[in-house]
Amino acid sequence: MTAQPLTESTFADRHIGPRSTDAAQMLSLLGYPSLDKLVEVAVPANIRLAEPLNLPGALSESQVLAQLRDIAGKNTTAVQMIGQGYFDTVTPPVIRRNVLEAPAWYTAYTPYQPEISQGRLEALLNFQTMVQDLTALPIANASLLDEASAVAEAALLMRRSGKNKGKTVLDADCLPQTIAVVRGRAEALGFEVEVADLSQGLPDGDINGVILQQPGASGALRDHRSLIAAAHDGGALVTVAADLLALTLITPPGEQDADIAVGSAQRFGVPLFFGGPHAAYMAVRKGLERMLPGRLVGVSKDADGAPAYRLALQTREQHIRREKATSNICTAQALLAIVASMYAVYHGPDGLKAIAARVHTHAATLAATLAGAVTVVHSDFFDTLLLNVPGKARDFQSTAESAGINLRFVDEDHLGVSCDETTTEEHLATLAQVFGVGQVAEPESASAGLPADLVRTSTYLTHPVFSSHRSETQLLRYLRRLSDKDLALDRTMIPLGSCTMKLNATVEMEPISWPEFATIHPFAPEHQTEGWRWLIEDLEDKLAEITGYAKVSIQPNAGSQGELAGLLAIRGYHRSRGDQDRNVCLIPSSAHGTNAASAVLAGMKVVVVKTADNGNIDHNDLTAKIAQHAEQLSAIMITYPSTHGVFEEDVRWVCGQVHDAGGQVYIDGANLNALVGLAKPGEFGGDVSHLNLHKTFCIPHGGGGPGVGPVAVAEHLAPFLPGDAAQQGAGAEGVPISASRYGSAGVLPISWAYVALMGGEGLTSATGHALLAANYVAARLTEHFPLLYSGEKGLVAHECILDLRPLTAATGVTAEDVAKRLIDYGFHAPTLSFPVAGTLMVEPTESEDIGELDRFVDAMIAIKGEIDQVQAGTYTLEQSPLRQAPHTAFALISDTWEQAYPRELAAYPVRTLKHNKYFPPVRRIDGAHGDRNLVCSCPPIEAFED
Amino acid sequence: MTAQPLTESTFADRHIGPRSTDAAQMLSLLGYPSLDKLVEVAVPANIRLAEPLNLPGALSESQVLAQLRDIAGKNTTAVQMIGQGYFDTVTPPVIRRNVLEAPAWYTAYTPYQPEISQGRLEALLNFQTMVQDLTALPIANASLLDEASAVAEAALLMRRSGKNKGKTVLDADCLPQTIAVVRGRAEALGFEVEVADLSQGLPDGDINGVILQQPGASGALRDHRSLIAAAHDGGALVTVAADLLALTLITPPGEQDADIAVGSAQRFGVPLFFGGPHAAYMAVRKGLERMLPGRLVGVSKDADGAPAYRLALQTREQHIRREKATSNICTAQALLAIVASMYAVYHGPDGLKAIAARVHTHAATLAATLAGAVTVVHSDFFDTLLLNVPGKARDFQSTAESAGINLRFVDEDHLGVSCDETTTEEHLATLAQVFGVGQVAEPESASAGLPADLVRTSTYLTHPVFSSHRSETQLLRYLRRLSDKDLALDRTMIPLGSCTMKLNATVEMEPISWPEFATIHPFAPEHQTEGWRWLIEDLEDKLAEITGYAKVSIQPNAGSQGELAGLLAIRGYHRSRGDQDRNVCLIPSSAHGTNAASAVLAGMKVVVVKTADNGNIDHNDLTAKIAQHAEQLSAIMITYPSTHGVFEEDVRWVCGQVHDAGGQVYIDGANLNALVGLAKPGEFGGDVSHLNLHKTFCIPHGGGGPGVGPVAVAEHLAPFLPGDAAQQGAGAEGVPISASRYGSAGVLPISWAYVALMGGEGLTSATGHALLAANYVAARLTEHFPLLYSGEKGLVAHECILDLRPLTAATGVTAEDVAKRLIDYGFHAPTLSFPVAGTLMVEPTESEDIGELDRFVDAMIAIKGEIDQVQAGTYTLEQSPLRQAPHTAFALISDTWEQAYPRELAAYPVRTLKHNKYFPPVRRIDGAHGDRNLVCSCPPIEAFED
Repeated sequence: MTAQPLTESTFADRHIGPRSTDAAQMLSLLGYPSLDKLVEVAVPANIRLAEPLNLPGALSESQVLAQLRDIAGKNTTAVQMIGQGYFDTVTPPVIRRNVLEAPAWYTAYTPYQPEISQGRLEALLNFQTMVQDLTALPIANASLLDEASAVAEAALLMRRSGKNKGKTVLDADCLPQTIAVVRGRAEALGFEVEVADLSQGLPDGDINGVILQQPGASGALRDHRSLIAAAHDGGALVTVAADLLALTLITPPGEQDADIAVGSAQRFGVPLFFGGPHAAYMAVRKGLERMLPGRLVGVSKDADGAPAYRLALQTREQHIRREKATSNICTAQALLAIVASMYAVYHGPDGLKAIAARVHTHAATLAATLAGAVTVVHSDFFDTLLLNVPGKARDFQSTAESAGINLRFVDEDHLGVSCDETTTEEHLATLAQVFGVGQVAEPESASAGLPADLVRTSTYLTHPVFSSHRSETQLLRYLRRLSDKDLALDRTMIPLGSCTMKLNATVEMEPISWPEFATIHPFAPEHQTEGWRWLIEDLEDKLAEITGYAKVSIQPNAGSQGELAGLLAIRGYHRSRGDQDRNVCLIPSSAHGTNAASAVLAGMKVVVVKTADNGNIDHNDLTAKIAQHAEQLSAIMITYPSTHGVFEEDVRWVCGQVHDAGGQVYIDGANLNALVGLAKPGEFGGDVSHLNLHKTFCIPHGGGGPGVGPVAVAEHLAPFLPGDAAQQGAGAEGVPISASRYGSAGVLPISWAYVALMGGEGLTSATGHALLAANYVAARLTEHFPLLYSGEKGLVAHECILDLRPLTAATGVTAEDVAKRLIDYGFHAPTLSFPVAGTLMVEPTESEDIGELDRFVDAMIAIKGEIDQVQAGTYTLEQSPLRQAPHTAFALISDTWEQAYPRELAAYPVRTLKHNKYFPPVRRIDGAHGDRNLVCSCPPIEAFED
Repeated sequence: MTAQPLTESTFADRHIGPRSTDAAQMLSLLGYPSLDKLVEVAVPANIRLAEPLNLPGALSESQVLAQLRDIAGKNTTAVQMIGQGYFDTVTPPVIRRNVLEAPAWYTAYTPYQPEISQGRLEALLNFQTMVQDLTALPIANASLLDEASAVAEAALLMRRSGKNKGKTVLDADCLPQTIAVVRGRAEALGFEVEVADLSQGLPDGDINGVILQQPGASGALRDHRSLIAAAHDGGALVTVAADLLALTLITPPGEQDADIAVGSAQRFGVPLFFGGPHAAYMAVRKGLERMLPGRLVGVSKDADGAPAYRLALQTREQHIRREKATSNICTAQALLAIVASMYAVYHGPDGLKAIAARVHTHAATLAATLAGAVTVVHSDFFDTLLLNVPGKARDFQSTAESAGINLRFVDEDHLGVSCDETTTEEHLATLAQVFGVGQVAEPESASAGLPADLVRTSTYLTHPVFSSHRSETQLLRYLRRLSDKDLALDRTMIPLGSCTMKLNATVEMEPISWPEFATIHPFAPEHQTEGWRWLIEDLEDKLAEITGYAKVSIQPNAGSQGELAGLLAIRGYHRSRGDQDRNVCLIPSSAHGTNAASAVLAGMKVVVVKTADNGNIDHNDLTAKIAQHAEQLSAIMITYPSTHGVFEEDVRWVCGQVHDAGGQVYIDGANLNALVGLAKPGEFGGDVSHLNLHKTFCIPHGGGGPGVGPVAVAEHLAPFLPGDAAQQGAGAEGVPISASRYGSAGVLPISWAYVALMGGEGLTSATGHALLAANYVAARLTEHFPLLYSGEKGLVAHECILDLRPLTAATGVTAEDVAKRLIDYGFHAPTLSFPVAGTLMVEPTESEDIGELDRFVDAMIAIKGEIDQVQAGTYTLEQSPLRQAPHTAFALISDTWEQAYPRELAAYPVRTLKHNKYFPPVRRIDGAHGDRNLVCSCPPIEAFED
């Protein structure tokens, strides 16, 4: 299918905000006659592409939907009884439509600005509370990327917390993909991993940590009490990877004295999605909370003393700790964690237990039914049976598939079969036929398969939130109420530097819930997944064309994981050439903290390169550092355009210096939105880049995930791209990064659709408009707030840094005050104090129209006027609307108003707000208070009373 | 597929609000040991069913979705080039998901409470402005039900406005279904209709009105100027049924001096939906505005003088005028009108014109291409060609169908082919092949087919709203902003007596946008629509079982149309027996005004029966009226339970009296939600009922439509059910009511799913819970607000009337004051002053949980306390928070607060509001001002400045 001029209007016109007349006006302000001319001046000539992107022409929205229906039709839906960490589930339609498909939820940013994020923070706190209750451990984080990487994170947590420094031991009944991912991380970091059958007791030697799976990959339920006690006796820590649904029926890890529990919340209403995105979880015992990776929501209070949520203990996080980080987790799986939390809110403890009981009864019925024909290996199980079928595994699997049911092929003699929420009696009857059994048999008792001493007796989900929203009307209103508390892209621009909050178009979002995409198991037979694999390969090819690399892998399910994958590819390359010692990674001081954290996790030593006064890489320091580390130089990680929002003219020179010294060049793709169609990192010097599909390619931020961080490499690095964790040993593949081969496959139709809708010309135009918008904002604001950096021609790239420090010095008003005051004006704040403390970084993107850009600029100018009033002494800083911001409706309507400025000035500083006013639900939040008094579960209802 | 206890939890638990413990608590307050006992006492024994409903067992949400996918799969999607009033169109995904599929839009009620409806009122005003601009007529209403009934309404409007009293003349090139519907209405009302080829000039005789079609059903474009002038010269009025898309290119009816324009807005982004629901429109010249049927949005001002929207000239409407009404239109097609308006907002005038030009160019290309092979009958056309293919029409139609394209079969010698927004060059190439033409030919010029003197020169859609939301981000935010202004079911209960605002579950809503349902043309070949017809027949059968009638037709696309269909069936029945004179319809004084209006439109004479002191029908008056009209008695229309919310014990007696006198009994199904599973109107005395699927069966109100009003009849009336307007003469069918055979087919999956999900037991339980909720609210409120009526056992049915009149007499506080003050408490008001002036009628429905019921009761009690303060003289009525209600945030935050009560009392009279506060965008609206200064188009932006 090709583009047709005589069909619908082009999607690019809908994606790009400014109309052509608006763009002309913006260019006129900047003094450029055309967008082409602006681009020509802004982008250094030595990297600018001569040829347009070689991509198919743009399709209309209808055409893309039609093509995606064709592609989806090439996948085969089936009854998925494969298990192995992925289970079919029923996403309640009210949750699907009002969370997963609702712009207010999916377009939200990570809740770094907590005052405008109370809704999603509450939902994530529900998630944490749910995990804490089910695992019986006191602190859980707000999700991790997938179960396998969560186990790897647990292994690392044990390594930094445990007193023993010896090996990490995994039970052989852990999920194969988990074992593979842990091995990969361990190899890079140089610690020993031993996989052993722990049903026979612990192996000898110094053990740092032990990792168990409950139920095991084989389906076996085991009582871990004595094993955990033995590990503790030997000074080792213990992690249990546990199934949350099983925990409604069996003794939870916390009650067996485990230190850490991890696992997946997928089967709580999150579609299979061909492997992801799903929310993993981690919970820890008291004392380990400050070691937790990932984001953690906590309860604090606002300026009026009201309870308020915000991210807790942020100093743990990689963007603060940089090369001292112990995890590179950044993006989590917020949207999916919210779906899982709402699944628990909707079903409640009794509902979840009923589902688990039904799943278990189905498994027990199946065990009783098949007992006559085959050997059911384990007598204790929750949902999964291991069947011993000597020599017949392939035959039975094939017969079952013909009957519409997918089973797990373990080896020639063994099959796995897993029941889940969607299992029906018909499915059991079909399986009876497949295995040649006459009819379905009753289990001996309802508790058959569940050992009496593993039966859970403790309560869970006792907080009222898990019993107050049980009718659809109640849940619908709860979801609306929460989302109304928040500001997302559906109400305002989110001008976050480096995070590229552009349009997430409906047409891109719609297909992800189609059953032919959403219900496919990651380990389904290949001939059932032709559509998926075609789409993924096509997307990888197009991303390769866009970035100028030879090959792309979309496996990494976050930018951080893409970085790690890229650095591990570099590591693998050096080692394949015998360069075992090349382990120094140069990173400019302005880099995103995750760069350094990822380098550490790839086993590298970080060496920081200085920034020159103009914000660029300091040439002398670079040369010196290269010389200093000569033979140890592994790579440099740079961001282009730089995190300062500038196209550095010398990027080819920088790359050349590193190459000449035998190093590889990693170009962070965070700012790729400034390059698409104009320049290719793979062409101007990069050996590897990661991309953020959730930035440049329209996957929504989902309030903090899902993300997709494909890694793109030059030809010589292609052999080192991530391998398939479930197929280790099958070939000479690279280190697996995610649990499933295609990572967060489920959201890839979004990026595929975006590229197809825009075509090469549209993508290039979007980039031009992103540059135009940033330069327009910079030009309009620079007389009020000095611009920290710009390129040689006085232009910025796709973002600009406003320097608040002189104003802070003069008046005390901080960048944070401005950020909070912007809330009163109805805006999400720009990026605060990154990459330079005391500044605001603004990235408008191409999707914002001139009206919204002007509204933002006008708000900033008005705020500057308020700062001037502080300077003039009209009110003190403490009593200023800036420091008192943001203002809640409740405070504004209070019978007593004791502020030094009038109410109307507080609420309606510009009159257009009268027609479109957002009131934050809380006032400014005291983060330090929350960190001192750590509470990471749902507070009691009474806390909200006056 | 049957229900399985061991699968998902029952949907009924999600649909019904109270948990079993809550219900026990509510029953305890009422003094009943069980729901069964309450039902036993509440529902008269002489009508209560002995047997449960004979319906299949309840299915789970997954099962229903799976079944609907099977059903949808039995429909065949095709390229729809049939035309005849229905054209394929592209619903922009952003509109589909954020209007059609968004709870904030679809769960909203009709905007009778304008202060909480400003968002949808603005959207409807956009619709009116769009229609006015495109037709070049100054006043348009906020939509009508379908094009055919809109033309019938235009005919009636001409009859009551025109000075000539003679016949109504329709051009023979009007749509066949339009002609059939107009004939049906005319027959009942006894006026003459003549269908003539007006291209030959007007027929002789006294002509009241002339109806033309532009383009004609044949596709012909004609210049109507001289015909209109001739009609006017003869004293006749002229209506033009015009295609809105064509009007972007051709001279509009207003510029040709037409008095009225009508038509369909379907092709503005509303799916084909197998015939409906679609928004029809009507626009009139100056001087006719007070004659307009249907709802009309106008601009007025609020208590602060700010511009505010509300329904204008409501005294025109049937619910006010009752038997003096000139139209029975009540429900319109608000949701679809909003979709159409947003389509215009998104495309803007240039975009619409480009679409029209593309459609026309495709038609012209096709004309040039086919000219060699067949005769193209009309040389002037917009989108539709009439092809002369002597004797070969069936062959060509069949060949085209095999190639995936549906054409219109006109007769053995003629085919119609219509281009639309979705037409592509491939389609044209396929048609070239079908007709044996080698290749697609170019038209002579871009304007080929468009007569030069019909080319439109005037501008349209010049209001900024049609050029301000052209990127998807802009439109998304506009839609969010509008919906945030409104209160719908997704935020609060809407306790409207007689309107049954229950849950519209997501699972019920999802399937309506599936292409296999949404893209089917109403005149597609029957073998392509097996799924649709199976679903409809199955739903009709189930509704027959539920109501106790022999047969159901879902054709009527609103309750009012169901009434008309039912009354016409009665009329047909009497006449079939030679009872030409039976034309008196008895209607109790408490009836909904639409009853009387429908009776008038069915050609009946309305005789009002008095209400006794207890609210029931006055027996003596009934007997007297029956005796008085003996041989003329056609029918009685009663509502059961009565509009007073009471189960009258004597309903069998009433029905018997009427039957004995030779009359038929019409039981209005507005209150069927109190009967389902407990009693059947067809069993206790009704001969005919209409149902409101948008009340009892979960079709959402959509802010004032779509509705579906099936008519259900006893065996002897079955031959008189509505016939197929497009197939008149094909059989002995009844009078067609709607343009398409299955009316608003597109939303029927909602009701089908509801019945399938609930099963007989669930439906019956819902009814019981509806009775429980109403009695609970009544019992809790009665000491604060006297209950006007209850049954013999002291119970109400599913709603209750609170009598404000004593309080009004004592304090001056009106029911309206209470309704407006409820907004400050976050509630939509109950039904105001119907059926008794000065009262509030409350219907909570089964979907509201005890928490929401209590929140409402507590709000009402708090308001009673405020009334007491007026009585106590704490503040005067004028200065009370009741009369000043509702309060906007802007007023509450004003620097000057001059009210006699504090701000916090105004905004947060109960403290829980702090956590969930709705602020209306305007203060109380002055409706009379707007009616005196009628403005029904978008006001200029400047009007909103301070």
